[in-house]
Amino acid sequence: MEKNYLYFHDVFAAGEEHLHGIKNTIVAIKTPYQFIQLVESSFFGKMLIIDGDVQSSAKDEYIYHESLVHPAMLLHPNPKNIILLGGGEGATLREVLKHKDIKKVFMVDIDKDGIDLAKKYLGEWHKGSFENPKTTLINTDARKFIESQVASNSTDIIISDLTEPFEAGPSYKLFTKEFFALLFDRLTEDGIFVLQASMLRPVTYRMHRAIRNTLMQIFPVVRSYYVYIPSFDTTWSFVLASKKYDQDPKTADIKEIDEKIQKRIEGELKFYEGESHMRIFSLPKDIKKILAENKEEIITDSHPLSLPRKENI
Amino acid sequence: MEKNYLYFHDVFAAGEEHLHGIKNTIVAIKTPYQFIQLVESSFFGKMLIIDGDVQSSAKDEYIYHESLVHPAMLLHPNPKNIILLGGGEGATLREVLKHKDIKKVFMVDIDKDGIDLAKKYLGEWHKGSFENPKTTLINTDARKFIESQVASNSTDIIISDLTEPFEAGPSYKLFTKEFFALLFDRLTEDGIFVLQASMLRPVTYRMHRAIRNTLMQIFPVVRSYYVYIPSFDTTWSFVLASKKYDQDPKTADIKEIDEKIQKRIEGELKFYEGESHMRIFSLPKDIKKILAENKEEIITDSHPLSLPRKENI
Amino acid sequence: MEKNYLYFHDVFAAGEEHLHGIKNTIVAIKTPYQFIQLVESSFFGKMLIIDGDVQSSAKDEYIYHESLVHPAMLLHPNPKNIILLGGGEGATLREVLKHKDIKKVFMVDIDKDGIDLAKKYLGEWHKGSFENPKTTLINTDARKFIESQVASNSTDIIISDLTEPFEAGPSYKLFTKEFFALLFDRLTEDGIFVLQASMLRPVTYRMHRAIRNTLMQIFPVVRSYYVYIPSFDTTWSFVLASKKYDQDPKTADIKEIDEKIQKRIEGELKFYEGESHMRIFSLPKDIKKILAENKEEIITDSHPLSLPRKENI
Amino acid sequence: MEKNYLYFHDVFAAGEEHLHGIKNTIVAIKTPYQFIQLVESSFFGKMLIIDGDVQSSAKDEYIYHESLVHPAMLLHPNPKNIILLGGGEGATLREVLKHKDIKKVFMVDIDKDGIDLAKKYLGEWHKGSFENPKTTLINTDARKFIESQVASNSTDIIISDLTEPFEAGPSYKLFTKEFFALLFDRLTEDGIFVLQASMLRPVTYRMHRAIRNTLMQIFPVVRSYYVYIPSFDTTWSFVLASKKYDQDPKTADIKEIDEKIQKRIEGELKFYEGESHMRIFSLPKDIKKILAENKEEIITDSHPLSLPRKENI
Repeated sequence: MEKNYLYFHDVFAAGEEHLHGIKNTIVAIKTPYQFIQLVESSFFGKMLIIDGDVQSSAKDEYIYHESLVHPAMLLHPNPKNIILLGGGEGATLREVLKHKDIKKVFMVDIDKDGIDLAKKYLGEWHKGSFENPKTTLINTDARKFIESQVASNSTDIIISDLTEPFEAGPSYKLFTKEFFALLFDRLTEDGIFVLQASMLRPVTYRMHRAIRNTLMQIFPVVRSYYVYIPSFDTTWSFVLASKKYDQDPKTADIKEIDEKIQKRIEGELKFYEGESHMRIFSLPKDIKKILAENKEEIITDSHPLSLPRKENI
Repeated sequence: MEKNYLYFHDVFAAGEEHLHGIKNTIVAIKTPYQFIQLVESSFFGKMLIIDGDVQSSAKDEYIYHESLVHPAMLLHPNPKNIILLGGGEGATLREVLKHKDIKKVFMVDIDKDGIDLAKKYLGEWHKGSFENPKTTLINTDARKFIESQVASNSTDIIISDLTEPFEAGPSYKLFTKEFFALLFDRLTEDGIFVLQASMLRPVTYRMHRAIRNTLMQIFPVVRSYYVYIPSFDTTWSFVLASKKYDQDPKTADIKEIDEKIQKRIEGELKFYEGESHMRIFSLPKDIKKILAENKEEIITDSHPLSLPRKENI
Repeated sequence: MEKNYLYFHDVFAAGEEHLHGIKNTIVAIKTPYQFIQLVESSFFGKMLIIDGDVQSSAKDEYIYHESLVHPAMLLHPNPKNIILLGGGEGATLREVLKHKDIKKVFMVDIDKDGIDLAKKYLGEWHKGSFENPKTTLINTDARKFIESQVASNSTDIIISDLTEPFEAGPSYKLFTKEFFALLFDRLTEDGIFVLQASMLRPVTYRMHRAIRNTLMQIFPVVRSYYVYIPSFDTTWSFVLASKKYDQDPKTADIKEIDEKIQKRIEGELKFYEGESHMRIFSLPKDIKKILAENKEEIITDSHPLSLPRKENI
Repeated sequence: MEKNYLYFHDVFAAGEEHLHGIKNTIVAIKTPYQFIQLVESSFFGKMLIIDGDVQSSAKDEYIYHESLVHPAMLLHPNPKNIILLGGGEGATLREVLKHKDIKKVFMVDIDKDGIDLAKKYLGEWHKGSFENPKTTLINTDARKFIESQVASNSTDIIISDLTEPFEAGPSYKLFTKEFFALLFDRLTEDGIFVLQASMLRPVTYRMHRAIRNTLMQIFPVVRSYYVYIPSFDTTWSFVLASKKYDQDPKTADIKEIDEKIQKRIEGELKFYEGESHMRIFSLPKDIKKILAENKEEIITDSHPLSLPRKENI
């Protein structure tokens, strides 16, 4: 491996930094919403950075995207209509489209420039998914879209792949109790909502717990799960929220998951299968303890979690 | 949290570095075997660094040490005689001593200065374990000790908590087929050997796989497992090797583990319990694939794995 | 040279950082006024850091301290009574005391804990100067001391070795027009005031220029000079302000300086001599241009220069 | 100033690193001779990096290039024929061409790809100088060119702007006694040779001193001079070597230099003038002492200075 002279500095918390040697930048643009940099990392290949945070890398993006999409999709008996919030790289969309029997995916992403960049430079991520006939791409605010264009009881799966609402940023209204109630209403009776839910590790959990607590105000079944992502140098979390008690990923059966993958999915998965499910949904004792504390910390439209990123500990 | 001016740079691989802000160094010594630095990290509290690698931090050392010790100890029906190789901080010893019914632990660590430093500065780690009447501390080379002072079929559990044999360093003779055969001989019929086995993640696995492959030449049951350690910024691995087919951590039962913890352990565990076991022993698809490749790469006395640390990918 | 695992990060400006590998910290204390860290740098030896800024290193502190003290002392025909503001390490004091014919040095430093640390750990710096019978050490605020305890027309040389007044910090009242007028009054007719005056280089000059401009409101002769300090990784500046037009360091003669050094100084100088004087007082065209701009930016008690350190460009 | 996520790490010596925040890379190519990266630094603007070393930045390249070119050009009574070795950016050429009365500049640079990159991306540096009718650009090895294509006693000024011969690299034959003797032969009677001569500061001087010592074997007048370059975070050195004793930059007169600039130069200088000359040619006591030691360390074709860059101290 060659010597590196340029580095991306990923600042995690006060005093905690991860450096990734890079060969060069491929493209860097400022959209109205974010600063997007695509770089060539020596270790991880192409690496997408938004406002200074690694979003995904060519070498390991499959872990994040498979973990976000497949548990919810396979838990549902027969998902047809899917809504995807955010997910600009197109890889979440790519995973959704591997499910042969779906009918429609609406992908709602406010940042048109970001999508254009993905179309042009992130072929390894989206694999042409934006052009799939099942895909409808909508450039608008996700909340506005859900409020005005989605009918009650109409959607099987909603997947949120948005950046977290740190410091009451623009996306915080997509993580509130009111918004989650709206999603609950739009989902069908056996509908499932899943979202990326920030960093989760025994020393960093506040944002995750607040999102989880907030979902627990609305959905009967709420399950945290998390997985180690090498290019993030940390574990990363998701929350799956289900409308029905008997649709619970914690009681899922390994063999059944493997069978469903065979039956329903076209193309190969690299990370997710029954045993992976067992790993990511099994919570160690320390994490369970942390999640049981401060249940009252929830996020509402009028009281966002005003948490500087560096204090998400 | 205060501003940091001093940082520890943990170099992982070419171009991959993790920085931890530190307040000051507590002690720094060069022993005949290693360079030991004890620093105060702003985020992780006391942090022990050997030859530039984080060994453990006050905030999360319990994850590593509980994961190393308890799966093997609880899998065994009734462990009495334990040998511990390395583990200078005294925390592995501390976890072993939580098992009420053991009779004897021999702790073999070549670096007397390291042990003295631990005794003086690492009270939070060892909690007085060096003084426990069940403990016998031996300052000698582990291989020499096993060869000349341990009888065949005499020991229930052997735990190896040694630094890895990178670049054919001095400890490489403690990771070879010949040495593992020796351990097999010293273990009783239902004896178990467990060791820390280097970094394991989908992008870093060569050292782990070679250790695993080597053990598979000697033991009938060999199980890789791994866990995320926040102060390492990565997942870390272990291998459990059992002499009996029906002693397999992969088929362990969650409830049974929780019951054994109640019955056999004195004091509280913070990380390990049945569900944690399920997590750490469940291997995702990508890791299983990696481990199945290059089975022929094994470590012998005459052919050590001569792998520079930065090429452990 | 050994491998470094610990680094001091000296942040200069937004995005501009200098890293110095260190072996360990020797002492770190928080006084009521500042956070003082003494570390062992691999390259520069002992290095003193206050609030994250390098103050001086064993290997090159002579450059700073000789440059601060000797031009003013040798320009004056016969300095007897000296006041030193700040300069806690004791090295400025050490240089003053090399002048055989002085009678008295009052050293005024508010931070008693800082002085105690210097006495204990910085022997290479102070060389016992605190105990010199000509030295009077005073632990109080410099302005209060000058106001209430120093008579008009009483002092030959005043040397200010204080940290800069960034962000209207506590020392800003020691850099204002009002304070400089006070010093002018306390100095004898041929008295000279010299101070360290922040970083000066073609890309970083605002603080220096404001200090210089302010002095020009009070003193007839005001001369900027600057020198490269290796452990600072930059040039550093001083201003010499004289009450008499015919006492001007710009018209000084090389040979005369060398003769005065022979005659008046006891002990050896390592940096300063006639040719060094020529170097440090000669200003390149770009620096002259910068200093000629924005002459109106001055510092007063009621209008301090409220300049974040990172915007000192 | 914006937040930086990407950094260039300039490694100076073991443990000594300078970080410059960058916005993005503009171009990065591997030529047969070197790895060239052009980046946009937040602080210094466009920054050219070769094999990990800053070559020059938009904000301060004038300091280096004016210092390299004008002292030699103005010391000579009437330079007509100039040879320039290296200097791929085109800025050394630009400064040479400011001298109205020159007839010819031969620029010899082995790296055609480097020149092409400069032509395309470094307009602020070369300002069209490659197309100047007085310029002849030659893509070949400098030694071969001097040996076979330049006549004895034919050239007024030779300027060497090459990367240093660290670790006996490919350019070391351009820094040997034999090569300098060749240049001496090609120069006219009042000819002058000047070269960039590595870092020079009281803690880093070996390469400079060896180059200087080597030149002293050949030329009667050899003068070291050096200047602080902000984007290098250090002082940088040059050596001027003259064939005639009465052509000595140390005895130059400030006023005379300023007059020559008026008379001979077209366009404005930003750094160099009489007083700048005084600064850069005046050597402090510590530097003089260092340069007087180890006079026997010289560079020859058969004994290059085999000095790893990090040991240039």
